[in-house]
Amino acid sequence: MYDIIVIGAGPAGYEVATLLAQGGKNVCIIEKDENRVGGTCLNEGCVPAKNFLESATYIKKSTYFKTCGVDMSLNSFDIEQLKNNTNKLICELRSGILGKLKKSKVTIKYGTASFIDKNSVEIDNEVIKADKIIIASGSSHKNHPLIDLSEDKIISSKEVFSLSSIPKSILIIGGGAIGCEFATFFNAFDCKVELAEFTPKLVPIEDDDVSRTLKRELEKSGIKVYLNANVTSYEVLDDGVNVDIDLGKKKEVKKYDKVLISIGRVPNSLSLNLNNANIENSNGFITVNSNLQSISNKNIYAIGDVIQSPALAHVAYYEAKRVAQIILEEDVMSEKTIFPSVTFCSPQVASIGQSEKELKNNNIEFKTKKIFFKSNGKAKIKGDDSGFIKVIYDIDSELILGASIIGNEATELIHQFLILINTKSTLKDISKMIFAHPTLSEATLDLTHM
Amino acid sequence: MYDIIVIGAGPAGYEVATLLAQGGKNVCIIEKDENRVGGTCLNEGCVPAKNFLESATYIKKSTYFKTCGVDMSLNSFDIEQLKNNTNKLICELRSGILGKLKKSKVTIKYGTASFIDKNSVEIDNEVIKADKIIIASGSSHKNHPLIDLSEDKIISSKEVFSLSSIPKSILIIGGGAIGCEFATFFNAFDCKVELAEFTPKLVPIEDDDVSRTLKRELEKSGIKVYLNANVTSYEVLDDGVNVDIDLGKKKEVKKYDKVLISIGRVPNSLSLNLNNANIENSNGFITVNSNLQSISNKNIYAIGDVIQSPALAHVAYYEAKRVAQIILEEDVMSEKTIFPSVTFCSPQVASIGQSEKELKNNNIEFKTKKIFFKSNGKAKIKGDDSGFIKVIYDIDSELILGASIIGNEATELIHQFLILINTKSTLKDISKMIFAHPTLSEATLDLTHM
Repeated sequence: MYDIIVIGAGPAGYEVATLLAQGGKNVCIIEKDENRVGGTCLNEGCVPAKNFLESATYIKKSTYFKTCGVDMSLNSFDIEQLKNNTNKLICELRSGILGKLKKSKVTIKYGTASFIDKNSVEIDNEVIKADKIIIASGSSHKNHPLIDLSEDKIISSKEVFSLSSIPKSILIIGGGAIGCEFATFFNAFDCKVELAEFTPKLVPIEDDDVSRTLKRELEKSGIKVYLNANVTSYEVLDDGVNVDIDLGKKKEVKKYDKVLISIGRVPNSLSLNLNNANIENSNGFITVNSNLQSISNKNIYAIGDVIQSPALAHVAYYEAKRVAQIILEEDVMSEKTIFPSVTFCSPQVASIGQSEKELKNNNIEFKTKKIFFKSNGKAKIKGDDSGFIKVIYDIDSELILGASIIGNEATELIHQFLILINTKSTLKDISKMIFAHPTLSEATLDLTHM
Repeated sequence: MYDIIVIGAGPAGYEVATLLAQGGKNVCIIEKDENRVGGTCLNEGCVPAKNFLESATYIKKSTYFKTCGVDMSLNSFDIEQLKNNTNKLICELRSGILGKLKKSKVTIKYGTASFIDKNSVEIDNEVIKADKIIIASGSSHKNHPLIDLSEDKIISSKEVFSLSSIPKSILIIGGGAIGCEFATFFNAFDCKVELAEFTPKLVPIEDDDVSRTLKRELEKSGIKVYLNANVTSYEVLDDGVNVDIDLGKKKEVKKYDKVLISIGRVPNSLSLNLNNANIENSNGFITVNSNLQSISNKNIYAIGDVIQSPALAHVAYYEAKRVAQIILEEDVMSEKTIFPSVTFCSPQVASIGQSEKELKNNNIEFKTKKIFFKSNGKAKIKGDDSGFIKVIYDIDSELILGASIIGNEATELIHQFLILINTKSTLKDISKMIFAHPTLSEATLDLTHM
């Protein structure tokens, strides 16, 4: 009998297990096998994707540095070595997670978990029991309604990390964060990249001006972008895939070496036998209350991608902390907090707080100010002065409500606005601070000079 | 008759002139010649130095990316092209400054300014008058007490930007920000770099742990560092310079292609004839009160490197804003504010607020927490997990008092702490925020988990 069973050792699961064990609870965590500890984020998501992207970004920047007299060209690219380097990093980070779990005295069991009843979970042939069970089983690649994955020609993001070579051409279906990131990756190589998004804009969660700028910049770097694009049929050939893309007014029939599908994620809940423990779900997403408890069974909690919150590792960490605080009866952090949205394509995209779209939908009046990186010396020095910082603020109080950044280091710079919004700062507060010169961050101060 | 004359069109001068003109004043700004608009920062300081460094950092990173399968090597380096690229950038930024001055209707005059009396300034053969005069004449390279510059073998930082080739070996005298930055620059090439600092530590304004880490990292990259090092004599030869370095217990006699002297800055006040306007100075630094007025003549203001405040462009901007507010009788920002210290070497160094050293000197109790980037996934992805973030906080309230960062993007990340300190945030406040994964910024949150 454990105090708590955690199902899934991704960011949500290993975080909550560690915190509860550190808080004195007897915790057991279940993961499919040792090589899956760390979840999607570590094994086939953020970490390998960003590692692939970092190399690609480095290659791509050589074009700019040639104009500085630095002549470096790609002699060769060894994808096996990139995969090895990525695996090494994954193993290192995974052993850090395992070390933390073991140090906190969390029991780790490997196998596929399913509910027997509201206090019992079966793992292969063993049954274990606990007072409380936390579901953190994560999510998987969402299948396309019309297109099946094929062994090597139609792939999901997961298979990118085991490619044996860079294709000569690729169609990426889905223009969200993952699709845009892989477009940036393949674009660094001798690969014709096309991106087809079903909705009228890339990175649909971002404001329109950000999406438009991203489209323009991706196109500048040679990526073809189709919006309102619907793949209606396809044929897998020996040497590629034929795809029909319906663009409304016209149709494109094109052939690609590979097709990558990245249209979203679905919760991993099917194999859990949720009914045995009376756990309600909606399309597989476990339905929880504001305390992250199953609405039909208060001793079951669910966190991370398996609930209908944004499928982001940092949101999972936060939910893990909140559940640990609730169970340990500590001060509980607010459920209403803001979290950054980040996309690591080139240029990077990030946002925080309320968007223009949200405020308009809620009929809240606001103003915006925008500073373009083309007026920032450091952005020019970095060889990429595309993009902008936009701040959204209250008309009367000038309280900062939200911000969007597209450009160099957007995914780091956004944290300034995370802090500004959390500390209820105004534009005037920023104007009194001294930002270092020459930095990208200066642009934040320059927003107040306009 | 002008309302205001500003002497010097560097960051302090062009900023104050623009603000005052926008505030309705009739302003004249004087600069030696058109090619000097922008001052040291633009023409021979921050901007060209960071542009040179960015290329060097790119080259240096190829070693790491080789381990990722990305084989890029330096085919050739054309220093003339780097100089051209840098000049293009300088011209672009300068025309931005000139545009702003002209748009604000500031009169610009070129020539060497000197005081006739407290309201009159002579420029070459013209005399102009104003109610108030602002001295923003900046600073110049400080001469070494024993070593004279020689045309091409013993140079100051200014001459680096006109080198016609990378030397095979260089001794950099002075281990402050500028010295360390140029050490990083030359180290990227086939150049033996040695750095001699007179005091017991590099970047002497930073805390000891930062200085020690920087020394170790520079040495790892192949730079030889001498501390407590005193250059006692030298001889310029046809093919280099012989230098005697006194290290206390031992002496080194070494030969270098070039010697670079970067031991500080001296104020540009000698040619101003300060006595004619009764303007007190101390070793050339104009002595000002808390309102940046000359203590001996309230109608004269001085800002930027010509007063004894840190010789940083962002401090100059701040002083310019304050003087403009004082003269325009607006709300005046506090004279007691914090400003980031930033050094763009590899790894980067930055700090904000109170240092351990300052707090100890003032007998103020404090605690520190330190997170090493080797526990940060994004730092590993970037191929450099050296360094740390250190936060300094009040024992009881956990109010953040200061921070030091050494590592990747330290000069951008430091602004999180700029905002945290200005908003009187505590460690607990940070712990409630959601930082994006995987980012360097997450390290800030991780500080609160220790």
